[in-house]
Amino acid sequence: MGENKIGIIGGTGDLGFGLALRWGRAGVPVIIGSRDESKAMEAARRITETLRLHAPTESQHLSIRGIDNAQAAAQASIVVLAVPISAQAAILKSIRSSLGDRILVDTTVPLAAALGGKPTQLLRLWQGSAAAQARELLPPATPVVAAFHNVSAGVLQDLSATPDCDVLVCGDDDAAKQTVFPFIKLIPGLRPIDAGPLEMSSIVEGITALLISVNRRYRVPHSGVRITGLELQS
Amino acid sequence: MGENKIGIIGGTGDLGFGLALRWGRAGVPVIIGSRDESKAMEAARRITETLRLHAPTESQHLSIRGIDNAQAAAQASIVVLAVPISAQAAILKSIRSSLGDRILVDTTVPLAAALGGKPTQLLRLWQGSAAAQARELLPPATPVVAAFHNVSAGVLQDLSATPDCDVLVCGDDDAAKQTVFPFIKLIPGLRPIDAGPLEMSSIVEGITALLISVNRRYRVPHSGVRITGLELQS
Amino acid sequence: MGENKIGIIGGTGDLGFGLALRWGRAGVPVIIGSRDESKAMEAARRITETLRLHAPTESQHLSIRGIDNAQAAAQASIVVLAVPISAQAAILKSIRSSLGDRILVDTTVPLAAALGGKPTQLLRLWQGSAAAQARELLPPATPVVAAFHNVSAGVLQDLSATPDCDVLVCGDDDAAKQTVFPFIKLIPGLRPIDAGPLEMSSIVEGITALLISVNRRYRVPHSGVRITGLELQS
Amino acid sequence: MGENKIGIIGGTGDLGFGLALRWGRAGVPVIIGSRDESKAMEAARRITETLRLHAPTESQHLSIRGIDNAQAAAQASIVVLAVPISAQAAILKSIRSSLGDRILVDTTVPLAAALGGKPTQLLRLWQGSAAAQARELLPPATPVVAAFHNVSAGVLQDLSATPDCDVLVCGDDDAAKQTVFPFIKLIPGLRPIDAGPLEMSSIVEGITALLISVNRRYRVPHSGVRITGLELQS
Repeated sequence: MGENKIGIIGGTGDLGFGLALRWGRAGVPVIIGSRDESKAMEAARRITETLRLHAPTESQHLSIRGIDNAQAAAQASIVVLAVPISAQAAILKSIRSSLGDRILVDTTVPLAAALGGKPTQLLRLWQGSAAAQARELLPPATPVVAAFHNVSAGVLQDLSATPDCDVLVCGDDDAAKQTVFPFIKLIPGLRPIDAGPLEMSSIVEGITALLISVNRRYRVPHSGVRITGLELQS
Repeated sequence: MGENKIGIIGGTGDLGFGLALRWGRAGVPVIIGSRDESKAMEAARRITETLRLHAPTESQHLSIRGIDNAQAAAQASIVVLAVPISAQAAILKSIRSSLGDRILVDTTVPLAAALGGKPTQLLRLWQGSAAAQARELLPPATPVVAAFHNVSAGVLQDLSATPDCDVLVCGDDDAAKQTVFPFIKLIPGLRPIDAGPLEMSSIVEGITALLISVNRRYRVPHSGVRITGLELQS
Repeated sequence: MGENKIGIIGGTGDLGFGLALRWGRAGVPVIIGSRDESKAMEAARRITETLRLHAPTESQHLSIRGIDNAQAAAQASIVVLAVPISAQAAILKSIRSSLGDRILVDTTVPLAAALGGKPTQLLRLWQGSAAAQARELLPPATPVVAAFHNVSAGVLQDLSATPDCDVLVCGDDDAAKQTVFPFIKLIPGLRPIDAGPLEMSSIVEGITALLISVNRRYRVPHSGVRITGLELQS
Repeated sequence: MGENKIGIIGGTGDLGFGLALRWGRAGVPVIIGSRDESKAMEAARRITETLRLHAPTESQHLSIRGIDNAQAAAQASIVVLAVPISAQAAILKSIRSSLGDRILVDTTVPLAAALGGKPTQLLRLWQGSAAAQARELLPPATPVVAAFHNVSAGVLQDLSATPDCDVLVCGDDDAAKQTVFPFIKLIPGLRPIDAGPLEMSSIVEGITALLISVNRRYRVPHSGVRITGLELQS
């Protein structure tokens, strides 16, 4: 996957930053996008520095860059959208002409907190899920895959920790899902699970609210989810 | 918990039968309810026979009985509702005057299949979840706890298998949840997790549709779900 | 519209019977469908008799026939589905191979009563509406139009009464909507309103539950809905 | 109703301003609330001026004042919330300690536009409706009534026009609804209809999205809704 660059729209936010850090560590070229190019560049700088401190010898070939969202989308081969639901539609509209046939990986969770509700509650979007809303906003040529909703951003940002979570992947384009799977496996502790068509993201997105509820009840920072009963070769 | 009898409304169905079998094996007195008392008695007879074959020496104190739903509710200390969503409201109406302050454990999953849709799709009930609909139908004195949605009925019915699944428990009455927890722990392989207030059942119920989707994708019979990141004493 | 035959699937139910009666009176050839052909024939006979009694001189050219659902679909040029939500999917599956490019007019309202809830409450279907569920179940060649949800079946069945209701028509195929409009206008008291794409049926279906609530509050039998602020030529 | 003052939270927005103008014209003392007191005062000044120009002789007893939201809530006997869904929860939290047993009239419509979707689409809130979300955020002593969702703000703001719309009123407190009814009748062209319990606001709120769809289809500015089949004395 040497030539595959991942663009992370919203790469200065918690989840985007965490994913960028983990993929950077795995040697994947990462392009961090932000509405504010200087913030993207600063995030790229921080990631590079963190990785150099963490594993000086492995970091010779790091390629972490920051740029504005539209260019991050245009220069990447896979584009991960990691923004709050309140920004999802506006940012998708701003990058959609740059996407072409690149895979858009939507990570958006429609938590009710976006409209003043609790983070353990959801908004039910008209299209059924945030990923389905992304699908409606994008041209048919752009495959949409939903993933990474349930992974703790905090764990990803802490290189001394290892996530313990399956990534439930939803999408109507099987080839696109298969393209995304190896990138999930590059992050130790994450395991990709094919959860079915894109409409299943309605349920997968909701699991995040459930994990937030569990975090509160058990006073733990990073609960996650695992699917049992599969016999997968790792 | 010697004096605690569990009544299982819908105990002749797959989930109810499986739970009755497991609790019977654990030595809990079980009262199987059915609209048809003779079917309830037949199910009780089959469970008793299965347990005697399976572990003859342990089965001396088995107490598995069958009776009609209303009496099953009246004679138990905890009442588990294990019926399809299409029957949930009608059966609750038929037993509600027998419930008093007994805990009602709702296991109902509003799969779209109930109205001709797919088993990987959900119906969104007006109250937000099947458990919330149960709550609305029952008197305030009856605590409602939601649980067991995600456990494979097939695994429970097969005594040679061990479930590998957390039981996400939702409810607004903490004491009622705490009362239900030990009964979950009596079934090897199940672990109770407090998922928060009853409204969280909206998400927990949905996970069943997700697991059905996973079962199909991976051609496995019994996927389950585990929450990670907790450090619980077992 | 002399050659246009309307097939009414579920023509023995309240809404279907009422529409058949009104279109019969307007001189439209009607084919009543039922799962039970003899019930369809009996309904056709009753409608013919009612119309002959009501207006003997106008009824010389009546063409009201009864037949099973699949044949009713096959022989009509427009097919109206007038069945409860609990039967919608199964009946659509049974007639879909007969539909071809005929317009399917869905009238289904997903009242919560279908699963034991109140008739003033709704089920939110996975696809967003009953009409969207119909759309998903039918081949792309069959246009789906949603209409007639808010019209009182009781008023339609009572030839001495005149409905006072707009028919909010939803659909993604403008030509199909335009084909249905004149048939609505044939029933005195009904006015077709283009409510937009098929997804708007999510709201239009809900208005029926609202009217049921209003009927109860005001102890009236047949409230209806009118849109104001339009200047339409009749 | 001489001593009844209406407080309008969000009285500088389109709907709030329109209602203030109409109630001012009807002689009701109005307190306009805004997060920014100076904007509230400016709106009050504009309304007073408009009414003086419109009907100089009737405007001697005008009482239109502007103040911040919390004080507007504290000084009024009925409090109308007229803010976008994106602000509803935050503003309710800011005024709830001032409400006491005053009636809160919620007018909020959860249009999908709040999260980048279309104004003809809705968000389904976790509690079922915007009014139910308001109910959850407020103390039990504060009655919540839902109303005015479907009335065109543009018509209200144009004193040369007369609205042509029913106001569907939802609420669980019948006395509170009865208190609100006369205030609706004070605005010529509006007719209050009791639509049932607060949960019916889920449907009433949706009608606004439907009317927006109709406005677009018919290129009209102010469609409205009327319920037929009632025989009410005006």
